[in-house]
Parts: sequence; structure tokens; C-alpha cells
Amino acid sequence: MNKIDTTLVPEPTLRRMPCYLTYLKLAQQNGAKVVSSTQIGHDMGVDPTQVTKDLSYTCIVGKTRVGYEVELLISELETFLRFNTMDCGYLFGAGSLGTALLLDHGLTQFGFEIVAAFDVNPDKIGLNIGGTTIYHTNDFKRVKHDDVKIGILTVPVEHAQEVADIMVDNGIEAIWNFTSVRIKVPDSVFVQNTSIYAHLAVIFNRLHS
Amino acid sequence: MNKIDTTLVPEPTLRRMPCYLTYLKLAQQNGAKVVSSTQIGHDMGVDPTQVTKDLSYTCIVGKTRVGYEVELLISELETFLRFNTMDCGYLFGAGSLGTALLLDHGLTQFGFEIVAAFDVNPDKIGLNIGGTTIYHTNDFKRVKHDDVKIGILTVPVEHAQEVADIMVDNGIEAIWNFTSVRIKVPDSVFVQNTSIYAHLAVIFNRLHS
Repeated sequence: MNKIDTTLVPEPTLRRMPCYLTYLKLAQQNGAKVVSSTQIGHDMGVDPTQVTKDLSYTCIVGKTRVGYEVELLISELETFLRFNTMDCGYLFGAGSLGTALLLDHGLTQFGFEIVAAFDVNPDKIGLNIGGTTIYHTNDFKRVKHDDVKIGILTVPVEHAQEVADIMVDNGIEAIWNFTSVRIKVPDSVFVQNTSIYAHLAVIFNRLHS
Repeated sequence: MNKIDTTLVPEPTLRRMPCYLTYLKLAQQNGAKVVSSTQIGHDMGVDPTQVTKDLSYTCIVGKTRVGYEVELLISELETFLRFNTMDCGYLFGAGSLGTALLLDHGLTQFGFEIVAAFDVNPDKIGLNIGGTTIYHTNDFKRVKHDDVKIGILTVPVEHAQEVADIMVDNGIEAIWNFTSVRIKVPDSVFVQNTSIYAHLAVIFNRLHS
């Protein structure tokens, strides 16, 4: 394990943090001012020791036998997760799932905005879906801004690698891969695989076994 | 660990299987008849030993120094994952994400169909979104069929537990929870958490660290 890895926040921690945030916001709505890691753990079904460890990655420290100040912890988590600043990204593949993401307003609440979308279907080029214009994938180089580093991949699986290559060649540094194929990218590029359909496999198995 | 747990296919295996399936279908399109676990592992970035272990949960066995018959493995995986029979489910919460799921045709390709949706917003009751009718949540008991056991949860977080309770009270046995809160259910009910927004936390962190 190299030095960089040891300083990275573990992925499971990062995935739990938005859940803590949601939990804390609900607690705040219900009037809570202070909450302990024991309470958070109990309510969320997470080991309280894990809760303390996860939250220690932010700058905030809970008080012994008291807990965390809810308002402060919410603010710290939002800053830590960068949910209170807007990151921009491009979407590749305005098909069924891509269109769904363009129409979903949830992303902006978590600090993410799709600023342009790309597709190769002539019927889609020039359309505006949910406020986002669809361009031809060939125009990516011309349309792109250098400060946008995130690309969402929702193309058909047979084009996933080819489109990932186009993204990487043009400066995308993080790919959110919604397809069910694994893509190959240079080490400097981060890939987050989010195949929601893969979760169906777990549901079907658990339901019928 | 009890007996039942040891017979369950591990979740990571179940989540990788749809990726193997997609990989194999692409390989088949490209003319492959036989593929080895070494090749699958290399192309997908998974340890070949893990590939062999994962695939051993199906009935198919690869031949030493030859590999798996692609067509047979595809068929076995589809059957094992129940992607070639249609499971039905209900959707609760026809908001932004819920509507997106209703409009996404990808689910049916993986053997899942949303047969009815429920919401409490009067403006939505009676609408038909992507071929699915929206009913009032209060009408769930009246509308539901006893053979539908899967419920998708896409309501606002503050109503997640309450709606989960309604599902459980009326015979839902598996909840696909897209909200960013953890819900409490009896042990007999399976919950699959799929908070896509939580993955944004990982992307932001990796991109900016």
C-alpha cells in the first residue's frame, strides 16, 4: 500500500456519509440539537464505533457523554462532501437512463449539475432535455470547458469503452459509469461504477432463495 | 453465522454477475465461442480466481485449459439471475427519481417491470407515466396483487420509514430503497439500498483529493 492510499478516505465511509447527513437533517427537523454516535448507529443500523470513525474524517469531534452538535455536524459534512458547492459534469448517452438522469433534479441537491449532454443519434442532437442541450459526441472537443472534469457514461454497453476513451482523451478525470461493463482507463482517471441493474440481481436472489 | 447465511450467494458476487453477463454478450457479438476465467478477469479487472469462484455458483463448470462455452454460460447466468423471467414490482414516490425510473426501459431488459406506482400528490394521481398508472398511496391495499413482492422506495426522505411500513404491512418482501435514509424492517424483509447520490460523494472526494 502506498502513501496516497493511506490518506484516502475509504469508499464505504464516503458512501455512508451522505446517509449520516440525511439522518442529521431529519433529526434537526425533529428538533434535535445534539446527537451521539450511539444514537446514530442505533437508528441507522451501523456500529457506533464505525460511526465515530467515519465522522472523524471531518474536522468535527463529538463531546464525551454528550455527542455532536447537529447543526455544526451538518455543515461540516456538507463542506467535507462538497455538497454545498456545485460541481459540473457532462453526460454521454441520452438514451433511456441518460434522459432519466437529465430529468432528475436530485443531483443538483447534492452539488452536481449536468451542463451538457452528448449522443450520436441524429434525432436527439439539438434537443433540450430538462434544461440541458444534447450535442453530437463528435462535438465534445469543441463544446467542452476545461474546468469540467466529470463525465457520466450512459451509452449502450458496446460503445462504453470507445466513449470512455473520448472522455479521457479530452481531459475528463472522473467517470461515473452507469453501464454494466467495466471500462479501462489510465491510473490517473477515477471510475465510479454505479450499475443500478446489478442490484436487481441481489433482490431477485434474496427474494427467491 | 447461521446455516441460511452460508448457503446465500455473497452480495459482491451477485453484483458482479450482471457484469460478467454483459461482458459475455459483448464477447459473443464479437464472435467468441469459448472464454477462460483468466481472460474474463483480465478484461474486467477482476482476479481470475474470483471469477471462477463467482461462476461456480451457477451450475456450469469451465473446462481446464479451455474455459467456458460462451452461449451456455450466458444462458446459465440469465437463468441463475432470473433476468429471463419477469418479476413485477410497485413504485412508491413518483417524484423526480421515481418518474425517471418509470421512464427508464432498462429495467425490463433485466427482468423487472413496474406494474403500478403510488404517490400522495393529488396532481399525480391518475396520471400514466411511461405506461404505469399512478394511484394514491392510500389505495395500495386495494390495488395490490398478492404475488407482487417487490417495492421501490423513492419518496422524500421524511416519509421513507412510513411508506416502508405500509409496504411491509401489505405483503412486500423486498424493498429497493433509493432514498439516502436507512429504513427499519422486520428480519423477513430484504432491503437493497441503492443511493446513487452517495456515489457522488466518492467521485467528488477522489477528484479533489
